[in-house]
Amino acid sequence: MDVGVFGATGYSGRELVRLLAAHPEAKVRFTTGSGHGHLAHEAGLEREAGAYFLALPHEVAASFAARLQRARPAAVVVDLSGALRLPTAAAYRAWYGHEHPAPDLLGRAPYGLPEIYRDRIRGARLISNPGCYATSVLLPLLPLLRERLVEDDVVVDAKSGATGAGRTLREDLLFCELADNLSAYAPGRTHRHVGEMEAVLEDRVGRAVPLTFCPHLLPVKRGILSAIYVKTGAAPGELAGALRAFYAGSPFVRVMEGGPPRLSEVVGTNDCRISVHAGAPGRAVVFSALDNLVKGAAGQAIQNLNLALGWPEGAGLPGGEGP
Amino acid sequence: MDVGVFGATGYSGRELVRLLAAHPEAKVRFTTGSGHGHLAHEAGLEREAGAYFLALPHEVAASFAARLQRARPAAVVVDLSGALRLPTAAAYRAWYGHEHPAPDLLGRAPYGLPEIYRDRIRGARLISNPGCYATSVLLPLLPLLRERLVEDDVVVDAKSGATGAGRTLREDLLFCELADNLSAYAPGRTHRHVGEMEAVLEDRVGRAVPLTFCPHLLPVKRGILSAIYVKTGAAPGELAGALRAFYAGSPFVRVMEGGPPRLSEVVGTNDCRISVHAGAPGRAVVFSALDNLVKGAAGQAIQNLNLALGWPEGAGLPGGEGP
Amino acid sequence: MDVGVFGATGYSGRELVRLLAAHPEAKVRFTTGSGHGHLAHEAGLEREAGAYFLALPHEVAASFAARLQRARPAAVVVDLSGALRLPTAAAYRAWYGHEHPAPDLLGRAPYGLPEIYRDRIRGARLISNPGCYATSVLLPLLPLLRERLVEDDVVVDAKSGATGAGRTLREDLLFCELADNLSAYAPGRTHRHVGEMEAVLEDRVGRAVPLTFCPHLLPVKRGILSAIYVKTGAAPGELAGALRAFYAGSPFVRVMEGGPPRLSEVVGTNDCRISVHAGAPGRAVVFSALDNLVKGAAGQAIQNLNLALGWPEGAGLPGGEGP
Amino acid sequence: MDVGVFGATGYSGRELVRLLAAHPEAKVRFTTGSGHGHLAHEAGLEREAGAYFLALPHEVAASFAARLQRARPAAVVVDLSGALRLPTAAAYRAWYGHEHPAPDLLGRAPYGLPEIYRDRIRGARLISNPGCYATSVLLPLLPLLRERLVEDDVVVDAKSGATGAGRTLREDLLFCELADNLSAYAPGRTHRHVGEMEAVLEDRVGRAVPLTFCPHLLPVKRGILSAIYVKTGAAPGELAGALRAFYAGSPFVRVMEGGPPRLSEVVGTNDCRISVHAGAPGRAVVFSALDNLVKGAAGQAIQNLNLALGWPEGAGLPGGEGP
Repeated sequence: MDVGVFGATGYSGRELVRLLAAHPEAKVRFTTGSGHGHLAHEAGLEREAGAYFLALPHEVAASFAARLQRARPAAVVVDLSGALRLPTAAAYRAWYGHEHPAPDLLGRAPYGLPEIYRDRIRGARLISNPGCYATSVLLPLLPLLRERLVEDDVVVDAKSGATGAGRTLREDLLFCELADNLSAYAPGRTHRHVGEMEAVLEDRVGRAVPLTFCPHLLPVKRGILSAIYVKTGAAPGELAGALRAFYAGSPFVRVMEGGPPRLSEVVGTNDCRISVHAGAPGRAVVFSALDNLVKGAAGQAIQNLNLALGWPEGAGLPGGEGP
Repeated sequence: MDVGVFGATGYSGRELVRLLAAHPEAKVRFTTGSGHGHLAHEAGLEREAGAYFLALPHEVAASFAARLQRARPAAVVVDLSGALRLPTAAAYRAWYGHEHPAPDLLGRAPYGLPEIYRDRIRGARLISNPGCYATSVLLPLLPLLRERLVEDDVVVDAKSGATGAGRTLREDLLFCELADNLSAYAPGRTHRHVGEMEAVLEDRVGRAVPLTFCPHLLPVKRGILSAIYVKTGAAPGELAGALRAFYAGSPFVRVMEGGPPRLSEVVGTNDCRISVHAGAPGRAVVFSALDNLVKGAAGQAIQNLNLALGWPEGAGLPGGEGP
Repeated sequence: MDVGVFGATGYSGRELVRLLAAHPEAKVRFTTGSGHGHLAHEAGLEREAGAYFLALPHEVAASFAARLQRARPAAVVVDLSGALRLPTAAAYRAWYGHEHPAPDLLGRAPYGLPEIYRDRIRGARLISNPGCYATSVLLPLLPLLRERLVEDDVVVDAKSGATGAGRTLREDLLFCELADNLSAYAPGRTHRHVGEMEAVLEDRVGRAVPLTFCPHLLPVKRGILSAIYVKTGAAPGELAGALRAFYAGSPFVRVMEGGPPRLSEVVGTNDCRISVHAGAPGRAVVFSALDNLVKGAAGQAIQNLNLALGWPEGAGLPGGEGP
Repeated sequence: MDVGVFGATGYSGRELVRLLAAHPEAKVRFTTGSGHGHLAHEAGLEREAGAYFLALPHEVAASFAARLQRARPAAVVVDLSGALRLPTAAAYRAWYGHEHPAPDLLGRAPYGLPEIYRDRIRGARLISNPGCYATSVLLPLLPLLRERLVEDDVVVDAKSGATGAGRTLREDLLFCELADNLSAYAPGRTHRHVGEMEAVLEDRVGRAVPLTFCPHLLPVKRGILSAIYVKTGAAPGELAGALRAFYAGSPFVRVMEGGPPRLSEVVGTNDCRISVHAGAPGRAVVFSALDNLVKGAAGQAIQNLNLALGWPEGAGLPGGEGP
């Protein structure tokens, strides 16, 4: 099947092209890139394909999704931006600070976290690919909240490689500013991914769970390591067992024994590795590690495409097997 | 005054020598180093000096401290190891896994966190320099607990540069293992610094406060950034105000406005920078940043020497002024 | 075909296992690793396979090669160490400082630089895989010397990532020593790879060409960039054209237009990218970039296996196509 | 004495402010910075001071130098840009690609390489601070050429940290592009510093010496390591001895025994460390290491100020003593 990649010069788009080169069913037929200016993206709308990946800024992704859906209703569109992740126009306005450009699309695109919404993604023609931080937090946390194994008082401390900020000419992303450095940003409850995490939790857990979430910018290129601090009466082994059971049919989510997962174990793969450890009495810490460009973006987008089209869920994706 | 540095080839010892070169009162008269083998350290015991810094493994530091005290009772000994940080032999056994080699020294050396124990350090002849993580956590946390501005349910997520692990031939400290990587270690409540943090909190707050503490190894050389998650009914500004008042006479502890402090702001200085931010309702996060080799080791050791001898507290130390 | 990898815990051995996972014909049947001590390597000698890769220290590789040849004369043995790269026992003694442990093997194993010795490698049962620096220098330099396009007065300035030094517990390879640093080592004409480069040049060019060669250790994990400074009456385009013609049938050697190749263009591939630029009058500089673990070690070893067994030369190898 | 720093937000300007804080005679009275826009620089022209440092783009530095000289003829102006480094308007046009904005200044500002032009710098009121690469090459090379110890056929392979490229929003300077990477640029004889190096050599050696010069961009923040390949009949020890004699009265230039100098030995100091090693017969390689922001920019600018005003040459400068 021919596929098109909009925004193939950014880090996620480039990773999509790299991963799709090894896909047994899909073949990249065209790409658009900022090197050619905005018009290049427009030209992509004229190209026929069976699937389209949108690795575009969220401000433009929604209208492209709408236009592609109108022009080619049978094609699968996977949007990697944040444009379609929130359930309502009001939530979008609250977290993104402006009106949604295509509000009628909201609620129509399943949230593409395959291990949680597999049924909704199967057969879908428009899929909203989750945020990288959101993926790293929701996978370990959602089952524990859903089964009431942990309390609703959750703290997340997340650390991400710099590709997560995109290929943007920002001074804090210069080598001489970021090397030898570490910074926290959007502390507390202000990062946009908090919005989509809380919306998904409310949808699947059935109640509002306010998160405290602090992301950090690491001097590495790839990878997210999240530490999720929970209150619980359960032992670490019980929590790990529940997660292992929940993800029994999901090869890319792997609950590990031993020490916390390191970035180097997951970089380049579509895996999310999880471990659970004891804290002070009544507390546990759950670690999760993934590659922000693979399971946190391009790999998950391909996993979603695979599900939408009925291909094997892991087709063309590195990882998924042990140890 | 002549001073001697035991263990001057490790990262802390080297930093001591570097900082002391700019000290107006102290002059390094001799150093001992692993380059010359264990005997070189012994030879240092024969050298006369007004002050001795012990940047040695904790296993040997205690006996060296005892022998120096006997041989030169008027000299100041600052021990940078963990040998004398815990109040009792039982606590030492619990956290270090073996019997204390000189238990009669325990309780005699004030814990050298100048902003907390200034009165005990003044005039002392044996001082136990705090751990780097412990310094980064106790400075922001202790006043808030003491004034009951936050609850006793505290989570700390700390990230340290690799000099914190010492100049040790360990495979995980090789460039090719650590670069592009991030790992958590000793998760939950197992790191030795938890012992000294809880002991100091009990001493100054008056009650046991069990911590959940997860340290991480960063691919940078210097610096610690700790995120301290607290439950509180107070607004961030109120917490920041309380900290600012508490440290009004302590120029090296600086409560900042704006975003969380970054490592690059403190590396090379004896400063600890703190900021407070809102979390989910009822929660706040307190960040603290310092240089693990300066305020977390060599700089704080010099600050302690200054206090012990009645010199200006900041003599020879970079930092201490804004912004 | 079943293959065995001796020394699979080192960086080259690990890369072999990683690359072979995608090979259409070969399957890793067993590995030996330092984690299990020296005996584990011995145990590998009992395992039956169609091909063996030796990613072992040169001191032990020669005897393993000899024993494997005796025990399984039909199998292909590719030695990644320096044990068999020099033509004579005298040359080995001069460059390695001790007697060769199996001198009768010398001269029997073709030097596995496929683009230069393809005919000798086809059908061979024992192949000596070249050094990483030697590969990066010989590919661009040998054709120019052979066709007398450049004079015999050659200067090479090479820079390598730290995996080139192996997974060795050496202080200069610690993160805190290597990060933010750059060092030259073995300057002038003392690095062992000079011996194999000069031997190959003498063999294929027909005269002794003494090299001035200075390697550097970079704070990166992978990649070699060599700058080769030559005296020439030819224009850069003429030199590039000669190289392009020489490597017309060799997809992994690619002569580029534009600026000098960067490490990031070749890391992860089996490519060697070359460019030629003018220097002062009568001088030119030839750059070559490759991944020291792929074209400089594991990838080239697989390319040699492919040739030895008559498989497509690029089977299982990333790279080889433009741009 | 009050001094002003124009352009204090760039890396060189920031380093000037940092170093001047420890200067016994000079005190920074004002700075101008890009944060306030171009007008902020203009406002600096109104400020009275005894010395001015221009850390501005070369396009604007020349006119600022001219205006400061007219307005305050007794003040010392040190220009850190390339505006005044070349001797003639024709040379400037050739290397910078546009007409010089203040050609009457050319030839009036001594080239501020103190170890070579100390006499001209003493008492000067306008000084042109050398380029960082030029400093690293001229110091080791000039004496050897001048005393005809090496031939005029010279190859330089230089590697610089990324602060050398300035605090510029360029894509190749982003962390994700530069980390794990190495690139050569401006290869052969095209970098602007070649112009000033050849001009100084012609002036002091008495003949034109065309250089082959290839700079590289390292994934480190600070430091330059240059390898200078020369043809010579002299032994390395003879070359080192000649350099040692030439720089006997220059404490910041240090000819070392042992291995080539590493960046970590010079970063943070005003030192240039040099070593000499044998190459192939008739060849030697001379290494030089310095901190591009100190001896290559801000430190050398202060050294020039010291000389101009008759202060001790090393006042306020780190380095200058052994080992």
